[in-house]
Amino acid sequence: MNSSKLSVFEHPIRIYWEDTDAGGIVFYANYLKFFERARTEWLRALGFGQQVLRDQSGGMFVVSETAVKYHSPARLDDTLAVTAELQSSGKASLTIAQRAYLRTTGGSDRLLAEGTIRLGWVDSITLKPGRIPAPVLEALK
Amino acid sequence: MNSSKLSVFEHPIRIYWEDTDAGGIVFYANYLKFFERARTEWLRALGFGQQVLRDQSGGMFVVSETAVKYHSPARLDDTLAVTAELQSSGKASLTIAQRAYLRTTGGSDRLLAEGTIRLGWVDSITLKPGRIPAPVLEALK
Amino acid sequence: MNSSKLSVFEHPIRIYWEDTDAGGIVFYANYLKFFERARTEWLRALGFGQQVLRDQSGGMFVVSETAVKYHSPARLDDTLAVTAELQSSGKASLTIAQRAYLRTTGGSDRLLAEGTIRLGWVDSITLKPGRIPAPVLEALK
Amino acid sequence: MNSSKLSVFEHPIRIYWEDTDAGGIVFYANYLKFFERARTEWLRALGFGQQVLRDQSGGMFVVSETAVKYHSPARLDDTLAVTAELQSSGKASLTIAQRAYLRTTGGSDRLLAEGTIRLGWVDSITLKPGRIPAPVLEALK
Repeated sequence: MNSSKLSVFEHPIRIYWEDTDAGGIVFYANYLKFFERARTEWLRALGFGQQVLRDQSGGMFVVSETAVKYHSPARLDDTLAVTAELQSSGKASLTIAQRAYLRTTGGSDRLLAEGTIRLGWVDSITLKPGRIPAPVLEALK
Repeated sequence: MNSSKLSVFEHPIRIYWEDTDAGGIVFYANYLKFFERARTEWLRALGFGQQVLRDQSGGMFVVSETAVKYHSPARLDDTLAVTAELQSSGKASLTIAQRAYLRTTGGSDRLLAEGTIRLGWVDSITLKPGRIPAPVLEALK
Repeated sequence: MNSSKLSVFEHPIRIYWEDTDAGGIVFYANYLKFFERARTEWLRALGFGQQVLRDQSGGMFVVSETAVKYHSPARLDDTLAVTAELQSSGKASLTIAQRAYLRTTGGSDRLLAEGTIRLGWVDSITLKPGRIPAPVLEALK
Repeated sequence: MNSSKLSVFEHPIRIYWEDTDAGGIVFYANYLKFFERARTEWLRALGFGQQVLRDQSGGMFVVSETAVKYHSPARLDDTLAVTAELQSSGKASLTIAQRAYLRTTGGSDRLLAEGTIRLGWVDSITLKPGRIPAPVLEALK
């Protein structure tokens, strides 16, 4: 990792058979899962577990937009480092920038995929849009 | 299909990239999904949609036991015929026997996987065990 | 479906338990799977099965970019109509526009999600970029 | 964990949105994925990465039989401890016993699911059955 990423949250992901497809590489849709695991751990590190957040606020995040570019494939047994950082935020939505790097023993990580995930906030029961809880917004900034 | 299967419910499944793994074949855990799709369509054909059943009864099926034998692998673009039939039933649980066949143009289908799925019934909110609605039990027999 | 979609390829998708998450709605990453099933069936309808294409040409499509907007959630037992149409094409890549509609009994379908998928072409073994087979490009136009 | 499990390999698994379904609990088929992650890490800890094993031997493990009992559901944000231990082995197949426990802060873990996975060995290209490499068999015992 280069120095510019030192302040970015990073989560390790191991590639298993379940993640691959008959092309011999990781199925592209699974990067959305990897990105979400990293976002979830980032929020948890900031003090916000998804279930606790839902129980306490009655609301939850929903994904409203995703954009991903795939640069290079990952394979079985690879270890990835997946990052998450806030790109922009408003009262009702957030955009998170995320990247997946291949961790190599040499230390020069390779960018595999990058993207942005836009999140909205909804009531857990009615699914009607609402405001993101202020403590969450403040913690992410 | 041979004549002995004529009375068994059967649902077609197409194999896509998402179903395969780096071994070049269908990932074994996915047969549980294929079996469930067939069970769901069987129940629907008998008049019981999963969501309607849940809304009306306040309960839902949960899987309590699975046993699957894998005989031969499926590959990308294959078409499978997945069957479902009642093996045994009680007031609180059901066991469904299921098979996945490879559909071939020649007409002699090959058995890929077979198994049994035991279902219990629980309250949707509390997840406490309950009795399977009588109309469902009667329809399945 | 309104008349403007009459010439667009459309593939039906049923929502099962496997497609949903604890939010009670379809997990957003799964729309990439639904889009791929529709693309695959579109190509098949044009005469190009994925596996045959790979066996004959030694190459395969890989997804290089995805962009999806989520407008409204799908739920268990819903039936979706997923479309695929060519947005642009070059010798080495294609962009496909896709939409997922909720099929309703009333006939007025609701747009659930829409996006674009950019595909490149690579050698199946080396994964090096190559040119999309000309017959495929011609058929898609 | 009680003392009887001290010698058993154990792998932690976190539950994310991707693992759950609209019942609000972990989708049962996903335990097969959790079991496989634990088996894979167990083999890795013994010196056998899946991809290296495949590259060096030309063969790979395939699952020939699974049997799982589900005792209690896991939910979003739960942490599981998944175990793997050899139950029996022959020259061409292995049976692994696996359990998934809910990790609680109090220290009294709850058994969620348990099962056995039978593995065979096949040539990676032809998928014909073969003998499990002797070093793998010896390491597992």
